[in-house]
Amino acid sequence: MIDDARFGLSRTVSLPGPLLLDSGAKLSPVEIAYETYGLLNADKSNAILICHALTGDQYVASVHPTTGKPGWWTRMVGPGKPIDPARHFIICANVLGSCMGSSGPAAIEPSSLTAYGMRFPVITIRDMVRAQAMLLDHLGVDRLHAVVGGSMGGMQALSWPATYPDRVEAALVIASTARHSAQNIAFHEVGRQAIMADPKWRGGDYYADADPPSAGLAVARMAAHITYLSEAGLTEKFGRKLQGRDAKTFGFDADFQIESYLRHQGLSFTDRFDANSYLYITRAMDYFDLAEEHGGHLAHAFKASRARFCLISFDTDWLYPTAESRAIVHALNAAGAPVSFVELKSPFGHDAFLLESPELNRIADGFLRAGESR
Amino acid sequence: MIDDARFGLSRTVSLPGPLLLDSGAKLSPVEIAYETYGLLNADKSNAILICHALTGDQYVASVHPTTGKPGWWTRMVGPGKPIDPARHFIICANVLGSCMGSSGPAAIEPSSLTAYGMRFPVITIRDMVRAQAMLLDHLGVDRLHAVVGGSMGGMQALSWPATYPDRVEAALVIASTARHSAQNIAFHEVGRQAIMADPKWRGGDYYADADPPSAGLAVARMAAHITYLSEAGLTEKFGRKLQGRDAKTFGFDADFQIESYLRHQGLSFTDRFDANSYLYITRAMDYFDLAEEHGGHLAHAFKASRARFCLISFDTDWLYPTAESRAIVHALNAAGAPVSFVELKSPFGHDAFLLESPELNRIADGFLRAGESR
Repeated sequence: MIDDARFGLSRTVSLPGPLLLDSGAKLSPVEIAYETYGLLNADKSNAILICHALTGDQYVASVHPTTGKPGWWTRMVGPGKPIDPARHFIICANVLGSCMGSSGPAAIEPSSLTAYGMRFPVITIRDMVRAQAMLLDHLGVDRLHAVVGGSMGGMQALSWPATYPDRVEAALVIASTARHSAQNIAFHEVGRQAIMADPKWRGGDYYADADPPSAGLAVARMAAHITYLSEAGLTEKFGRKLQGRDAKTFGFDADFQIESYLRHQGLSFTDRFDANSYLYITRAMDYFDLAEEHGGHLAHAFKASRARFCLISFDTDWLYPTAESRAIVHALNAAGAPVSFVELKSPFGHDAFLLESPELNRIADGFLRAGESR
Repeated sequence: MIDDARFGLSRTVSLPGPLLLDSGAKLSPVEIAYETYGLLNADKSNAILICHALTGDQYVASVHPTTGKPGWWTRMVGPGKPIDPARHFIICANVLGSCMGSSGPAAIEPSSLTAYGMRFPVITIRDMVRAQAMLLDHLGVDRLHAVVGGSMGGMQALSWPATYPDRVEAALVIASTARHSAQNIAFHEVGRQAIMADPKWRGGDYYADADPPSAGLAVARMAAHITYLSEAGLTEKFGRKLQGRDAKTFGFDADFQIESYLRHQGLSFTDRFDANSYLYITRAMDYFDLAEEHGGHLAHAFKASRARFCLISFDTDWLYPTAESRAIVHALNAAGAPVSFVELKSPFGHDAFLLESPELNRIADGFLRAGESR
């Protein structure tokens, strides 16, 4: 893990904007909370942007200020890791719509001086990327050596070369997809309905007191969490094992380990995440369809791109299965873009990209270094 | 569809019991609401018990009194169908714990003269079967020509020959499993937490006024409903099609057809189902592990059985995948029981057993007639 004081820089910048959003709305100012690690080199050729997933944040390799836990991707980012502050200028920004310091529903609306709540404009993955581009302008980074992300981070990593073809040299896209499927949307809709059904949600206007819709948010997290794990992984880890008891209780407490694990996942999530942000970010993911943004042809998204691509999927990921990555590879092939693709074996489903995987690291390292030797 | 007046008989019987439950509790009286079709023949050899799924009911081939819809399995049960009132005496009973007239949390507890609520004892699949056996005693049916069920109905159809080996000649088990997996339990737990998080649930004590925890129950239904459909089926039926609009609204209304479909599934369910029954029946399913009931060896469950078995799975069913049926077949082989097994192709996932399937009907018809020609 990277020691904040020595390697990491935690900042929030308020950019005047306005940022023109896909909805037609304009956002101003645009607050962006971000971390950086390492230094930008003289020819500004070593910047890597890391894009986080739905419930992720900018603390990719720094201690999380709320939970006190290590950064969420210290397996990939750190000294001696594929993304290394000794070699790279590493940037990770909290996405637009989130709740760790960047503009989102919990932020203060300038005109009313109260939290936006549901008056915050609905944003898209491309809007997140546009905000990141504003941050790069602010940091003096014209071109990215690479943009890297898993899951929703992968959507941004795909959207980057499509939106700013001249600013990206390489995109590493892990466990992701170019569009949300009906099943993906369905799971998110369950989560949103769980939040909005919680009487404490109050139309999103719950910031004045300290009583947010935690119960609804916990249920949303539980439903989503199942999709991050494989059936085989759940069976291996939990099976039908009972929770600290010898026998079933014939009641409704958590009898099975999987039940108490899920309850814990739901409850602990509410300590660190805002329910409205969950609504906005899931909406952005559901709206994501990179082909649709380019006349219905995914290959057209990459026509102007000169980036190299690396796609990685996991064989037990049923949220964004390998077929989704393969569809992207086909489109990249059609667009004549250089692309490599690997399906890795893992018992851990979608979450595998966050877990120990020497193969993942080896591929990421090779892909990033190939760009550096040019 | 069978016309009630001519073919169906709708009844509720109150049996004194007591019924000794797996939990150790005793239930008395035991109310059982059931439908019958056709007549028991002279040698009482033509009785078929149909077991319904989680949210099913006794109206297998009769109009549902609340929704006004045709019976839920008129494709399988009716004149000229594999299960035919002209040939068979057909019985379908509302399971113990449910809410269509059989004893369950919404029923009146004799000692307090108020609804049981959460004082209703936690029941198991085997308890449901025991209650059905009491009903058969009442109806003068010693032996079943066949017991038939899909999903949770298939669990009962498996439990029948294990619990009453002398009373079952054949068991037709469709899209089912011999035990709930960690993932199965996880989805049910999400649903239970959604219900119990609804402030209107009030510890299950909500029957006095007409204000049940519908929002929580709707979310539970939505989450479960996703598991009944295949990813490919959802893509084919809904994909990313928008709901009666040309463009996204950049809001939180149901933009996508899959969203409004799911919301409708959730809402309409609350008109016909009791939230506490949902808690109790999902608990019974999660507790189900037929091997565990027999010393950890599934084959031992069938040692005393003399029944023929037919197992049918669907290739896109990810709730109870084909591997679950195959495990049952292996156990039946090990027990020396006659068994046939087919995996059918269908794009519709778990729900395929309820839908039009000439192959399913052909197999069911052949299996049932084989027993009749002896």
